Amino acid sequence: MAEIHIIAPVITQGMRNLDDIAHLARPDLAFSLSVLDRGPASIESEYDEALSVPAIIARAVEAERNGADAVIIDCMGDPGVNPSREMIRIPVLGPAECSMHLAATMGQTFSVVTVLDSVVPMLNNLARAYGVKDKLASVLAVDMPVLEIEQRLEEARQRLAETSRLAVERDGADVIILGCTGFFGCADAIAAHLAAAGHDVPVIDPIPATVCMADAMVRAGLRHSKKTYAYPRAKTLIGYEMLHSTG
Amino acid sequence: MAEIHIIAPVITQGMRNLDDIAHLARPDLAFSLSVLDRGPASIESEYDEALSVPAIIARAVEAERNGADAVIIDCMGDPGVNPSREMIRIPVLGPAECSMHLAATMGQTFSVVTVLDSVVPMLNNLARAYGVKDKLASVLAVDMPVLEIEQRLEEARQRLAETSRLAVERDGADVIILGCTGFFGCADAIAAHLAAAGHDVPVIDPIPATVCMADAMVRAGLRHSKKTYAYPRAKTLIGYEMLHSTG
Amino acid sequence: MAEIHIIAPVITQGMRNLDDIAHLARPDLAFSLSVLDRGPASIESEYDEALSVPAIIARAVEAERNGADAVIIDCMGDPGVNPSREMIRIPVLGPAECSMHLAATMGQTFSVVTVLDSVVPMLNNLARAYGVKDKLASVLAVDMPVLEIEQRLEEARQRLAETSRLAVERDGADVIILGCTGFFGCADAIAAHLAAAGHDVPVIDPIPATVCMADAMVRAGLRHSKKTYAYPRAKTLIGYEMLHSTG
Amino acid sequence: MAEIHIIAPVITQGMRNLDDIAHLARPDLAFSLSVLDRGPASIESEYDEALSVPAIIARAVEAERNGADAVIIDCMGDPGVNPSREMIRIPVLGPAECSMHLAATMGQTFSVVTVLDSVVPMLNNLARAYGVKDKLASVLAVDMPVLEIEQRLEEARQRLAETSRLAVERDGADVIILGCTGFFGCADAIAAHLAAAGHDVPVIDPIPATVCMADAMVRAGLRHSKKTYAYPRAKTLIGYEMLHSTG
Amino acid sequence: MAEIHIIAPVITQGMRNLDDIAHLARPDLAFSLSVLDRGPASIESEYDEALSVPAIIARAVEAERNGADAVIIDCMGDPGVNPSREMIRIPVLGPAECSMHLAATMGQTFSVVTVLDSVVPMLNNLARAYGVKDKLASVLAVDMPVLEIEQRLEEARQRLAETSRLAVERDGADVIILGCTGFFGCADAIAAHLAAAGHDVPVIDPIPATVCMADAMVRAGLRHSKKTYAYPRAKTLIGYEMLHSTG
Amino acid sequence: MAEIHIIAPVITQGMRNLDDIAHLARPDLAFSLSVLDRGPASIESEYDEALSVPAIIARAVEAERNGADAVIIDCMGDPGVNPSREMIRIPVLGPAECSMHLAATMGQTFSVVTVLDSVVPMLNNLARAYGVKDKLASVLAVDMPVLEIEQRLEEARQRLAETSRLAVERDGADVIILGCTGFFGCADAIAAHLAAAGHDVPVIDPIPATVCMADAMVRAGLRHSKKTYAYPRAKTLIGYEMLHSTG
Repeated sequence: MAEIHIIAPVITQGMRNLDDIAHLARPDLAFSLSVLDRGPASIESEYDEALSVPAIIARAVEAERNGADAVIIDCMGDPGVNPSREMIRIPVLGPAECSMHLAATMGQTFSVVTVLDSVVPMLNNLARAYGVKDKLASVLAVDMPVLEIEQRLEEARQRLAETSRLAVERDGADVIILGCTGFFGCADAIAAHLAAAGHDVPVIDPIPATVCMADAMVRAGLRHSKKTYAYPRAKTLIGYEMLHSTG
Repeated sequence: MAEIHIIAPVITQGMRNLDDIAHLARPDLAFSLSVLDRGPASIESEYDEALSVPAIIARAVEAERNGADAVIIDCMGDPGVNPSREMIRIPVLGPAECSMHLAATMGQTFSVVTVLDSVVPMLNNLARAYGVKDKLASVLAVDMPVLEIEQRLEEARQRLAETSRLAVERDGADVIILGCTGFFGCADAIAAHLAAAGHDVPVIDPIPATVCMADAMVRAGLRHSKKTYAYPRAKTLIGYEMLHSTG
Repeated sequence: MAEIHIIAPVITQGMRNLDDIAHLARPDLAFSLSVLDRGPASIESEYDEALSVPAIIARAVEAERNGADAVIIDCMGDPGVNPSREMIRIPVLGPAECSMHLAATMGQTFSVVTVLDSVVPMLNNLARAYGVKDKLASVLAVDMPVLEIEQRLEEARQRLAETSRLAVERDGADVIILGCTGFFGCADAIAAHLAAAGHDVPVIDPIPATVCMADAMVRAGLRHSKKTYAYPRAKTLIGYEMLHSTG
Repeated sequence: MAEIHIIAPVITQGMRNLDDIAHLARPDLAFSLSVLDRGPASIESEYDEALSVPAIIARAVEAERNGADAVIIDCMGDPGVNPSREMIRIPVLGPAECSMHLAATMGQTFSVVTVLDSVVPMLNNLARAYGVKDKLASVLAVDMPVLEIEQRLEEARQRLAETSRLAVERDGADVIILGCTGFFGCADAIAAHLAAAGHDVPVIDPIPATVCMADAMVRAGLRHSKKTYAYPRAKTLIGYEMLHSTG
Repeated sequence: MAEIHIIAPVITQGMRNLDDIAHLARPDLAFSLSVLDRGPASIESEYDEALSVPAIIARAVEAERNGADAVIIDCMGDPGVNPSREMIRIPVLGPAECSMHLAATMGQTFSVVTVLDSVVPMLNNLARAYGVKDKLASVLAVDMPVLEIEQRLEEARQRLAETSRLAVERDGADVIILGCTGFFGCADAIAAHLAAAGHDVPVIDPIPATVCMADAMVRAGLRHSKKTYAYPRAKTLIGYEMLHSTG
Repeated sequence: MAEIHIIAPVITQGMRNLDDIAHLARPDLAFSLSVLDRGPASIESEYDEALSVPAIIARAVEAERNGADAVIIDCMGDPGVNPSREMIRIPVLGPAECSMHLAATMGQTFSVVTVLDSVVPMLNNLARAYGVKDKLASVLAVDMPVLEIEQRLEEARQRLAETSRLAVERDGADVIILGCTGFFGCADAIAAHLAAAGHDVPVIDPIPATVCMADAMVRAGLRHSKKTYAYPRAKTLIGYEMLHSTG
């Protein structure tokens, strides 16, 4: 039995529930979940990310200590992925890195459709950092804050569908990635909308995709390189003592 | 229950057995296997690949028709992956593409350690085609033909270990990919050799990694883009009638 | 007297005639031509390519044996170029590789105007593989199957002209490449159309360009590298015995 | 009179003193300095960076409020540069970004010589993110922790000189960047060592270089783009209330 | 007291006056200026550049001999920058290289808005040569010759503003660079126009930016690499004797 | 009968003679040659190039006026290629651009072996500008000035052979380009040396290769794009009146 631990990198309860991914459980695969005790209500900037990272690392360290086999950080900005990889040895996956590399294997180009214009540069920069910028057709936004998605879900789906179609028809995208993990569950509706317009294009819902990839890494015995992500050296630390003890 | 079908893209019986990956089976995951009725005894050139592809496509088409959920082509040259993706709708995975993108997420750089100098340019070109050349530290060869690996397994392991160490120490590799699916089962010994030399570096065994990735794609409901890999138009065909009937 | 051998990589008689390039003959340069005995009627997918390659290689081997000085494979997908280079020592040229590198020397950017949307990803991927993607402004299609070009030649010319103008005006192309060797003979009309719209832009007709480049390589004593394209090792082969005997 | 504010992104007093850069003061240019009240003693990993960022942002916000004209974050990992740019409007400079782009204008290639092997991947990734990886000859380490540099200064200088020479002679570096702001003041000795070996190669000391660049941006009226670094949206925040009030 | 010498690389008196940059003078910073005695009236092609370069080099050599601390060549084609760097040891800055690298640090993407369509390919090629093409959103032209800017200044400002807005809204530019040093003084008006349209985007006026960067390089003790820009070997020279004597 | 005009871009008589390429003449192909009346004795720096360019342009303009069908500038720095393309309409070829693109089609990687360390950065930068840097294995120098090659020809051949072997064995080159047109005639000896060491690697002698390519462009009716290389606008010019009259 393997356990994948999902960190909702916000202080908002209920943005992610284990029910969301219950259908991905298997006889030999279970999930656990944690949220942050300090940090922002949602993540829509590098500032929000910065304030989420210390608590994300703490959750990742606890997850490994509690026997988890892999950790997923549930945000398309991939906050805290690299420092968590330094602190622990089990795989740590970010949905942006995971979705973008998957998309790169699924078609000639891909677009990301996200929440706000303000996160478009962040996603472009992630594509650069991950080395897949050459296959990125565009990053587009539907102009809806993360915390409003749930209440305006039907509108979100509609805007995602229209914007995805623009990505396909104008920008030449062959694969669509939902650019916020808050769009969970919208992929099928978007794919149907695209199919109705004559585009047989897959749509990646990042959290299910990343959960399955984490499971794959665990089964294949893979983890990140400790040559890239070396354990940090122990040193004096003020304000994060709880973390320090795990170094 | 999902079924992943593995195509051994050669006419040589026994180069791949289902026993090899039996430990990757799960309560809801099974494997099937086919070999070619025409093609080469092993694949060590683009010529060998070219002669394997028509029969690979036929096997892929049959696999989909027989209910498989994904197809893997068991060779690090990824022969026939793209045309098979055109002919069917279930995911078709190549171990080179899969391993290279996985490696790109696991560390800052990776090297591929393969069989013969003659395949080094092919693997470099695959890294270019897949867009991961920037993270490729080197492609090195152990100078051993595919068909001799099994008989000279201990020597193969030894050479792989030494060559991998060279990739890490001289070329700066942070992740190692075994560059031939015939090196199946050697990853642990190489990782141990590297660890003994002070290098905590993961080693990707391509077939287990690709099997787990295929399982992940099936579970996540992902497939390749039909905008990139459109169904071929029906047309007159001489010499491959069996294939044509499936178009 | 040098001889350039052209392989029409299809089973369709008459898609290429030596008359087409008779004006390129010189006192010391002659041409020969072959078609396939097995393979597809036309090439519009990687599947079509795959089924053309074994017979292409056979024709290339025969051409070298018969004293040809260079081989050209007459399709913008460049099918079989690399495996043929492995099997023989005389230069083997593909019109896509040749035209794209020529275009890269002729202007700051280029576009390719091809037959069908389904081949757009293939041409984008070839540009990646050849390392010229950075100068590729766009790949556009006129939505006409290869086998209809000849009957609808005037319409093809018109669509090519309009689409080329779009490539120049919207996508910033400074050079146009005809993206199917079936568009043979259309370059002048398109260049005239562009000139009338105020664009002094060269249009590359791939077959004449590749023929002249092959002649250049022969005269300059150049050939492909046997370090990149090593002779394949002899091995057991089923279904392609005729080829095997030449290994 | 312009004021450049330097944030020493650690809790260690005295790692940076205004005396260090007093010679860079001008009749119309003054400096101020702050250190962190919480965070790590030194920065040698992405984990250390993560724990320094919240307090860095707070210092940057205060600096703008106090009338500073630009902010420099005194660490070659450029921690907190992007989120600080989001929160304030005056230029925020990171010495790695600044030194790498300067080096790119000063020669055909450059190498970075840093403290520990564990930061080599971080610096390679920064070069990727900044788009200058193509000109990066190598990142090398002298194997000395940040907090030991001051006590072992002579040894540090010696190792830097020898390692820089290796970068020039083996890796082809035309410019050297000191890869840790703790190497402050070592550039002249290294340049002299290189000159004695026949290499007329400039050595960039990152803090003086970044101070002068910040001064240049202020004088030229330049700042970062608010389209790339939009002000974060106000939202509920736990554990960083002091920061929230400045949003 | 440092002195920055500006070379107006044309024979036209008054295209640049020291008054233009008088506001950038500082208690410890002065400017000097020279124009060419032979060359073109303005620079709008590589041909114009070629004819300006011999006299530019002569001015640069004189400037160093006369005690200047840095040289700026006042044209966005950066003519003569590299050969001048070879002949002298003080920094030689080109406004295109300088502005493009600055822009790369100021936002995720940038566009250049220049005079004529005919210089668009030159600026694209400079971005390639400088390694920042990946961040270049577009190069656009306002269709006005250099020598008409001064007389049609209001119209120039208007066209620049509209074209910059197109760059931001259609091409995704996060930073704007004025693509001709003849647009001196227009940046504020353009930034105001963009701000009125809701775009908080910085506009780089290349000459002030380059002057401040040159000052920064002087203060930081930086210069170009003599490994990249070696002193030319003395040799026979016809037609440029004055230059030869300085070799 | 086509005529290819070769410009020896130096004032040194006899560095290039038509005899050198007499064996490339054909029943329908003739050559002509010019040298410069002003400029440097040889080209080994960007400074040397700058002083050769005005007279190169004059020779190119005359060549077109005299009925030449293409122009070649006989130097691996490709001096004056772009401004000459602006001034005339017939193809203008540079041996570096031509050889590098040819090499890119001939193997997976190539190295350039040139005269002096001081030209190594120039050739690296040309590879960047031409977009083929990704396939460039290395640029190496044999440490011999251009004007000494002829007198020390045997030594030059020996050093070229050894350095080429280093490029193949250490740097992974699959194709060798002679990096100075003064190495004319050495290719066969180097290829033989490499073959004796077991490397079946082609060696490009740039002038024969470029002559044959120019012939190919003429026969194929190709020329450079006037959208990239627009005719310069007429304008006042001092010191180059002879050129101006042709504008």
